[in-house]
Amino acid sequence: MEISNDLRDRSLGILNEFLRLESVSAGNSCINETASYLKDLLNDLGINSEIRRSTGNPVVIGRIDSRSRRIIIYNHYDVQPADPLDEWKTDPFNPMMIGKRLYARDVSDNKGTLIARLIGIYQALKDKIPVSTTFLYEGEEEIGSPNLENFIKSNKNIINGDSLIMEGGTLMGSRPVISLGVKGLLYIELSYEIGSSDVHSSMAPVVENPAMEIIKAISALSDGTDITIPGFYKDIRNLTEDEINIIKEYPVDMENIKRSLGVDNLKKEGSYEYAMSLFTEPTFNIDGFSSGYSSKGSKTIIPKRAVAKIDMGLVPDQDPNSIYRNILYKLDSVHFKGTVKMLGAEYPVRTSPDGDLSRAMIESAETVYKIRPVIIINSPGTQPMGLFTRYLKIKDAVSAIGVGDEHSRAHAPNESIDIDNFFLAIKHTYEFIKMYYH
Amino acid sequence: MEISNDLRDRSLGILNEFLRLESVSAGNSCINETASYLKDLLNDLGINSEIRRSTGNPVVIGRIDSRSRRIIIYNHYDVQPADPLDEWKTDPFNPMMIGKRLYARDVSDNKGTLIARLIGIYQALKDKIPVSTTFLYEGEEEIGSPNLENFIKSNKNIINGDSLIMEGGTLMGSRPVISLGVKGLLYIELSYEIGSSDVHSSMAPVVENPAMEIIKAISALSDGTDITIPGFYKDIRNLTEDEINIIKEYPVDMENIKRSLGVDNLKKEGSYEYAMSLFTEPTFNIDGFSSGYSSKGSKTIIPKRAVAKIDMGLVPDQDPNSIYRNILYKLDSVHFKGTVKMLGAEYPVRTSPDGDLSRAMIESAETVYKIRPVIIINSPGTQPMGLFTRYLKIKDAVSAIGVGDEHSRAHAPNESIDIDNFFLAIKHTYEFIKMYYH
Repeated sequence: MEISNDLRDRSLGILNEFLRLESVSAGNSCINETASYLKDLLNDLGINSEIRRSTGNPVVIGRIDSRSRRIIIYNHYDVQPADPLDEWKTDPFNPMMIGKRLYARDVSDNKGTLIARLIGIYQALKDKIPVSTTFLYEGEEEIGSPNLENFIKSNKNIINGDSLIMEGGTLMGSRPVISLGVKGLLYIELSYEIGSSDVHSSMAPVVENPAMEIIKAISALSDGTDITIPGFYKDIRNLTEDEINIIKEYPVDMENIKRSLGVDNLKKEGSYEYAMSLFTEPTFNIDGFSSGYSSKGSKTIIPKRAVAKIDMGLVPDQDPNSIYRNILYKLDSVHFKGTVKMLGAEYPVRTSPDGDLSRAMIESAETVYKIRPVIIINSPGTQPMGLFTRYLKIKDAVSAIGVGDEHSRAHAPNESIDIDNFFLAIKHTYEFIKMYYH
Repeated sequence: MEISNDLRDRSLGILNEFLRLESVSAGNSCINETASYLKDLLNDLGINSEIRRSTGNPVVIGRIDSRSRRIIIYNHYDVQPADPLDEWKTDPFNPMMIGKRLYARDVSDNKGTLIARLIGIYQALKDKIPVSTTFLYEGEEEIGSPNLENFIKSNKNIINGDSLIMEGGTLMGSRPVISLGVKGLLYIELSYEIGSSDVHSSMAPVVENPAMEIIKAISALSDGTDITIPGFYKDIRNLTEDEINIIKEYPVDMENIKRSLGVDNLKKEGSYEYAMSLFTEPTFNIDGFSSGYSSKGSKTIIPKRAVAKIDMGLVPDQDPNSIYRNILYKLDSVHFKGTVKMLGAEYPVRTSPDGDLSRAMIESAETVYKIRPVIIINSPGTQPMGLFTRYLKIKDAVSAIGVGDEHSRAHAPNESIDIDNFFLAIKHTYEFIKMYYH
């Protein structure tokens, strides 16, 4: 497709309007107004739309119905807070072009992507491609989608479909990234409290130390190298030859990675070993540990309480709920006296690179970007993709078509995109639809 | 001895004056004024005195010289801050009697004790007992005596002696407590930093987790039951039959202990097992552990840093410096990548219950209090007693003669003593001197 001047102006106009809406979910500002704006926008573009209540912020649903197979497109209309405001060089809610970059809160993650996809499909619709789509725009992604599971469960008939395109999709240099899945997640909290106040450490012979109790529990679950939760590794799906080849192709610049993460060392040496770990290794990571005194100098106490937060990155077909049960079993067997809480669970997803969705996405990317996309078998992080694949039995799911690049600073001050990437994402959506419905 | 009305009035007058001086070492207020007050007070009582510089706050030294053997008496003239002020029912620096209790900051720990001992010895001097004493009053006890070691090392000729009476000595009900020693201490800090900022936990397959690195190090040193530092237990001195009998006599009320500590459980059941652990078991106690995120909900990060503070309570003849070397050796052998720092070291001390000092102290307590004192072979906590026994080769050291009881609230708002215990401590000092120089 070529983007006409009219379409260019119209899509930029819409994007700018949308970016002006301060839909901060953490602050609950402007949420209903933004949902209404989106509903009206969809209607203006000839797409049936409605606002549906959830147990949290409202969800905007748009539908294009034809007799063809159906694609679910997931995005969100809420944004991160703009703080710290004094680090912005522009007004975060008054979009501004500087050179070729458009600056505004959420332009990269994800309002630019939402609009680009919408415009691409609007154009496909005008060109009479027999597309069948459900747009699902939630208003709580930036606060962890606490009500999405309930919403999906109770709206199965409306948001059912054959394929799913999640939020996400960035560019590495000029190469678009296509994720054929996501890692899962199990997030737990371990805590132990001995009483109402700290105790002098001279009582250590007779009073339990809660930090040590948590350390013993953690040591029962992982020795720092291997994860020792019973059955932890047993459901891991073997990699196919195609997937191994995809991993081999992943571009790795170790020095650049260290610099951008701000770390002095990486655990892996060599690009292949790095990529293989990043995408296929399940993890046991301590997000936080807090107990007692940790300021300057020394204080001799038995802390009254200790708490640790731990996330486990899961790969297909590990099951967070079954792993959680095995954690409880293991901690029980070592007589852990504290409390275990599950703070989050996401199922991992990995879609075949050979399916219709993957192939149309990869081939359309090559057509539009004129370069081989970066393909990853599943993202190293997580997204609520598993909710769709499990509750709606959607087999093919990818995370692709996005407008952000390595300079986009999502969630940070001075978020921006290269405006060319906005138009490329419109084209990519359009070409993908054409190939998928070929 | 009987305390005359004159002596009673004079000693109360001195105590009240002394308590009015706001000698908060943490705030560095009124320190020099209080040192001068003490020097003048000693001179007024006929005791040679001087203020000696240290690398920190000045030290007040008083000397009574005769040809007899010499007792060192250690106390401090600095006090804890009075915060939180709004929890006091009286002015902490304007002493006030309510019923039989005198309320003021530091009256229990330890200005009341300092004055009672001083008056007792002043009276012995007047009664021509051939006492030979060095009073050492430091001004930094409440901030951890950071300069005491240096002071002792460079003033050996002045503070040498045959026996030592440290600060301390409280009452359990109406029974005075006599500690024939102290536990030692080794305080260390383990820390590990991976870089300049937290990293998203999706990078856990390739980036080290500093909290896990600290947990691995701690697990190499203790399994939560046994301490696995090489040679940790090898220097522990056997208990004598007398010492075992002393432990058996220690009064234990488990329910009361739990209530006063505010803990739900104790590790030991049965009084003897409790007392045996409390006084003779060396410990490995986590005072604090801090890394990453520990507030409400979940945050997926690899923390940039982790730090743990650990104290080890040591019993005779464990050597904190040798144990520290073995910790370094052990952590090296498990390839610990972080940093180890020693934040404190105290040598344990245990004096024979059969020596002249112990016997005079115990017998004089029985004479004055008309009840068997509570004897402990060494306190469960620590004091810098080891500095005197090691650097000055003082063999006999006890911690006894004090004015505080279970209601005294040392370091807390509404610190107080029963004023009868002040006069009993004067008498105890006097009778002890009489017996020791018998």
